[in-house]
Amino acid sequence: MVGQALAEGFTRADYDVTIGTRDVDAALARTASTPRGAPGFGDWHSAHPGIGVTTIAEAADAADIIVLAVAGANAPEALSLADPESLTGTTVIDVTNPLVFAPDALPSLSVVNTDSIGELLQRTFPEANVVKTLNTVTAPIMIDPKSLDDGNHTMFVAGNDAGAKDEVRALLIALGWHDLLDLGDITAARGMEMYLPLWLRMRMAFDSPMFSIKVVR
Amino acid sequence: MVGQALAEGFTRADYDVTIGTRDVDAALARTASTPRGAPGFGDWHSAHPGIGVTTIAEAADAADIIVLAVAGANAPEALSLADPESLTGTTVIDVTNPLVFAPDALPSLSVVNTDSIGELLQRTFPEANVVKTLNTVTAPIMIDPKSLDDGNHTMFVAGNDAGAKDEVRALLIALGWHDLLDLGDITAARGMEMYLPLWLRMRMAFDSPMFSIKVVR
Repeated sequence: MVGQALAEGFTRADYDVTIGTRDVDAALARTASTPRGAPGFGDWHSAHPGIGVTTIAEAADAADIIVLAVAGANAPEALSLADPESLTGTTVIDVTNPLVFAPDALPSLSVVNTDSIGELLQRTFPEANVVKTLNTVTAPIMIDPKSLDDGNHTMFVAGNDAGAKDEVRALLIALGWHDLLDLGDITAARGMEMYLPLWLRMRMAFDSPMFSIKVVR
Repeated sequence: MVGQALAEGFTRADYDVTIGTRDVDAALARTASTPRGAPGFGDWHSAHPGIGVTTIAEAADAADIIVLAVAGANAPEALSLADPESLTGTTVIDVTNPLVFAPDALPSLSVVNTDSIGELLQRTFPEANVVKTLNTVTAPIMIDPKSLDDGNHTMFVAGNDAGAKDEVRALLIALGWHDLLDLGDITAARGMEMYLPLWLRMRMAFDSPMFSIKVVR
């Protein structure tokens, strides 16, 4: 859901987008709707023929910017399917959250407190420039922040490489974000991911994911 | 620092305030300034003679509302110094955060992810009505939210007892809060406490604790 939304949003913002997936044929053959009622990937792609679909390795190899839009727990494995050379000096945007949903417990985080997925990715792939962002809002707001109070809310950015953060900032501005807050190096991903339990309680309270937060000073 | 600020704020809002402390004589004898440059407790109290100072047990016994303003890790022990009868049916406002500051590591939380201080207090003192609030802003904003964008930012409330939350809501409104968000039962304390690492990174980015967040829908 997040990857497809971002592909649409980036395309609308005039970026060329290619989706990387483990099995291209299997992905394109999926036409059954998702449990949430979204179209299957194959049908979705038929409606968005300008968006490429290929293997993760090929998508990463051709990419100037890589966006990791997978379940947080799967993020390191997904990135490991890219050639290390493809990652060298490449900006990797990590929009993931390490959420664990269990039947008899409240949602929790699989990586938390003294580590984060953002840090784990940067440690595992030191040749990449990991930038954490967009994980604090639902997908429709990621790509259309102005749909909410004319974009008058805050998006956080964290990462070790200033150049990579500049690239991400330009991309966020192209999506409509204007209140960007640089939280420093990738260790700030910890705080950004640990915000999720509060986000989930607000989602429950509103019975909707269509909200965000504005930092007020 | 938080307890003294709240005592001043509640007094200004026409509540009668008594501070409970383990050793009254020792507390009043402290005149040396704190490491942050605040006056010692004795000097502070001389400037606020209308605020009572007594033992935790006596303060809790006389209180309609108990406010726990201590380090998160010490919150259960502090409340254990009150007579259980004093706690029965009494609203206990938990403003604490389980922050751990270590010399060679980033700050972390001592209770996190699958539990929280708020829940721990409610489990340990089932006779009390624990309400989590105010832990997401610095003390001067707790007692004067209108100092920031005319109070146009959000305060969260969580707890199991509707009547206790009504009491707390009235108290927050008396302090100047007007954007209150009820997150449901005390398990929401988890999200409220896990927000702290993000708060700490913003504090670093701004080099100031004078900020808050507004939930935008």
